[in-house]
Amino acid sequence: MISYRKELTLNIPTRRAFINITPQVKAVLKESGIKEGLVLVNSMHITASVFINDDEPGLHQDYQEWLEGLAPHEPTTRYRHNRTGEDNGDAHLKRQVMGREVVVAVTGGRLDFGPWEQIFYGEFDGCRRKRVLVKIIGE
Amino acid sequence: MISYRKELTLNIPTRRAFINITPQVKAVLKESGIKEGLVLVNSMHITASVFINDDEPGLHQDYQEWLEGLAPHEPTTRYRHNRTGEDNGDAHLKRQVMGREVVVAVTGGRLDFGPWEQIFYGEFDGCRRKRVLVKIIGE
Amino acid sequence: MISYRKELTLNIPTRRAFINITPQVKAVLKESGIKEGLVLVNSMHITASVFINDDEPGLHQDYQEWLEGLAPHEPTTRYRHNRTGEDNGDAHLKRQVMGREVVVAVTGGRLDFGPWEQIFYGEFDGCRRKRVLVKIIGE
Repeated sequence: MISYRKELTLNIPTRRAFINITPQVKAVLKESGIKEGLVLVNSMHITASVFINDDEPGLHQDYQEWLEGLAPHEPTTRYRHNRTGEDNGDAHLKRQVMGREVVVAVTGGRLDFGPWEQIFYGEFDGCRRKRVLVKIIGE
Repeated sequence: MISYRKELTLNIPTRRAFINITPQVKAVLKESGIKEGLVLVNSMHITASVFINDDEPGLHQDYQEWLEGLAPHEPTTRYRHNRTGEDNGDAHLKRQVMGREVVVAVTGGRLDFGPWEQIFYGEFDGCRRKRVLVKIIGE
Repeated sequence: MISYRKELTLNIPTRRAFINITPQVKAVLKESGIKEGLVLVNSMHITASVFINDDEPGLHQDYQEWLEGLAPHEPTTRYRHNRTGEDNGDAHLKRQVMGREVVVAVTGGRLDFGPWEQIFYGEFDGCRRKRVLVKIIGE
């Protein structure tokens, strides 16, 4: 068994965004030389997500509006968490809906994906440096 | 380390359904000969889920109604994604609530499950052929 | 490849609670002797979650209220599942939002975590003995 680890660094200039990180994950997989196994891709931060869906801007706007309806940012006083001095209570909730991590099969040295699967970083409390962990195990 | 891969094919005749795929996943595990490891089961499509819960029809109806409340199919014009010519914007949202994948421990050649755990395929945009990936790594 | 398996047992005296199980998972990892690999931590029960977020009591109250809004416990007659004699229909829905499992990278013998990541058991139908599975594979 071989394992390989790499961090991706993101610094999103806005509070919220979805970023396609599939090319970076593919590059890490290539570097690793692993042909068969599993890759874990997870946000190392608790107000951000890693998820798999479609790379379609209209859908991403739908997600943003839907998440804002499920867990509104304002008024920030609605979250007890914000009494700690934060204003990101909503981000912790949104991240739970979209998920922390994905696990993807590696087959023949490639991400074993269906036709439309792409990996996204979902930022819900940006304007700061954040990290995504890519860990691959296999052979 | 051994790895084993198989696709399950589903063709659900309705827009939405939950299908118990535990027997198929058990069969793949048996074929693989793997005794200790992890099995990843994921939808290869982005308007469908793989999740673990109870095989109880009343609960499944509760899920359908709840998801319809959280992300209604109608009016289809409420989703920007549907301006691309699709009518499945809601399906992309429902799939995020129920999840893309499960990872299950393999112990002694079996799915290492609690008493009521069963694996389901959740279809939110059916009437077409879709695939589920089963990837097992271990020994 | 080595694999290691252990069950954690929980017996929460209330219907709902979030319990930080990071110390127990770290102890299992240490016992395993595995230095590089993946650890799967999952609820073996379908009305409970394992998830990663912040160990902040205000946030946990925010989660509880938010989940109660998304999937209210009362009236218990709103869930078809409860016609089976259960009163935990809401718990099956809440668990889907928070998730069944987490997969965490193991690097240098440690949980490969960002600064605030902690693993929680989320109970939504307590007052009974329940189990969490920790399965580690690697070297």
